[in-house]
Amino acid sequence: MEIGTVIGNVWATRKKEELRGLKFLIIQPELPKDSSVENVTYIAVDQIGAGVGDKVMVTKGSSAANITPDSKLPIDALIIGIIDTVDA
Amino acid sequence: MEIGTVIGNVWATRKKEELRGLKFLIIQPELPKDSSVENVTYIAVDQIGAGVGDKVMVTKGSSAANITPDSKLPIDALIIGIIDTVDA
Amino acid sequence: MEIGTVIGNVWATRKKEELRGLKFLIIQPELPKDSSVENVTYIAVDQIGAGVGDKVMVTKGSSAANITPDSKLPIDALIIGIIDTVDA
Amino acid sequence: MEIGTVIGNVWATRKKEELRGLKFLIIQPELPKDSSVENVTYIAVDQIGAGVGDKVMVTKGSSAANITPDSKLPIDALIIGIIDTVDA
Amino acid sequence: MEIGTVIGNVWATRKKEELRGLKFLIIQPELPKDSSVENVTYIAVDQIGAGVGDKVMVTKGSSAANITPDSKLPIDALIIGIIDTVDA
Repeated sequence: MEIGTVIGNVWATRKKEELRGLKFLIIQPELPKDSSVENVTYIAVDQIGAGVGDKVMVTKGSSAANITPDSKLPIDALIIGIIDTVDA
Repeated sequence: MEIGTVIGNVWATRKKEELRGLKFLIIQPELPKDSSVENVTYIAVDQIGAGVGDKVMVTKGSSAANITPDSKLPIDALIIGIIDTVDA
Repeated sequence: MEIGTVIGNVWATRKKEELRGLKFLIIQPELPKDSSVENVTYIAVDQIGAGVGDKVMVTKGSSAANITPDSKLPIDALIIGIIDTVDA
Repeated sequence: MEIGTVIGNVWATRKKEELRGLKFLIIQPELPKDSSVENVTYIAVDQIGAGVGDKVMVTKGSSAANITPDSKLPIDALIIGIIDTVDA
Repeated sequence: MEIGTVIGNVWATRKKEELRGLKFLIIQPELPKDSSVENVTYIAVDQIGAGVGDKVMVTKGSSAANITPDSKLPIDALIIGIIDTVDA
């Protein structure tokens, strides 16, 4: 999982039918200070009430679809936790 | 999911039988202004009527195959929404 | 999916038993002109009769294993189409 | 799998319900000496008792979710072993 | 799949129970001559008798877990063949 910060929302009226009702948030990945890696944002689904400014844990790839027991959704990033503390 | 713009079509007469009828579009990923990351385009399947010029949300990886309940297709990128607004 | 060109073959007599009979081709990814990304080739399975010189559409990742309804094969790249035209 | 070192913990009270009880550790990937690749840390689930300072083997991607026979968890990195020796 | 060379072994006494008996080898990816990509090694599971010095084909990602019909293992790289010849 990677750490990121929620920085916004995405609105898409026309979308895959089975995705109606899902909340799509924009994530800015957290990088080391003085990083030379470019900070390319991406979109993650939220089901735990994260909002702009929250530091979150994000699962990427097809594991993000492991949120429904039966048919899986075509999503590749999911917020799985709102971070309280990082102890490193 | 990542944000991209539809910039074209791909035609392939000879293809895996189970992919007949699918629409394949070329996606240009959206990068930050002044980005030094190279903008390498890729191909995504469209089932929601996206067309050239549309800004879209794309699911990448094997989650893209989560569009059929039973047997999954060998595809790794799927347009899941046409973006109205990005609020960031 | 990404676009590439078939540039060769790989032969491996000793391999996983369930992969016997599969054709393994070397793919050179297509990059933008003047690209600074390095062109690292990889191996993809072919089931549609692609050959050296063909421009192909390749599915990467675990979706490449979606070619058998039941037990999936341990492969991570599959040629899914031979490209006629790219309209971009 | 990749080799990394456990360098800390992450605490997240608000998280996906099915992840309660899991331990989340911060991993620093091991890179070659004089590497110019940037050392971006990530979070992995631990179920074998790894702790800060341990050199571990980490499985990334959706294979990390292969820890429960039935419903899979939305996690994308898992510590699978604590390394005794690397013979290279 | 990618091409690499086996350069060593990894030993981990404490590991996930279901991984006991698996052989873990260190793989050095093969890169183009004069490549500027950094050669970061990784660990792959071997079930076909590969050894140090062998040039091998490696499947990466969750397809690597497609080696057991029923419950999948948490592994993300698998040696699927020992290469005889590359014809490119």
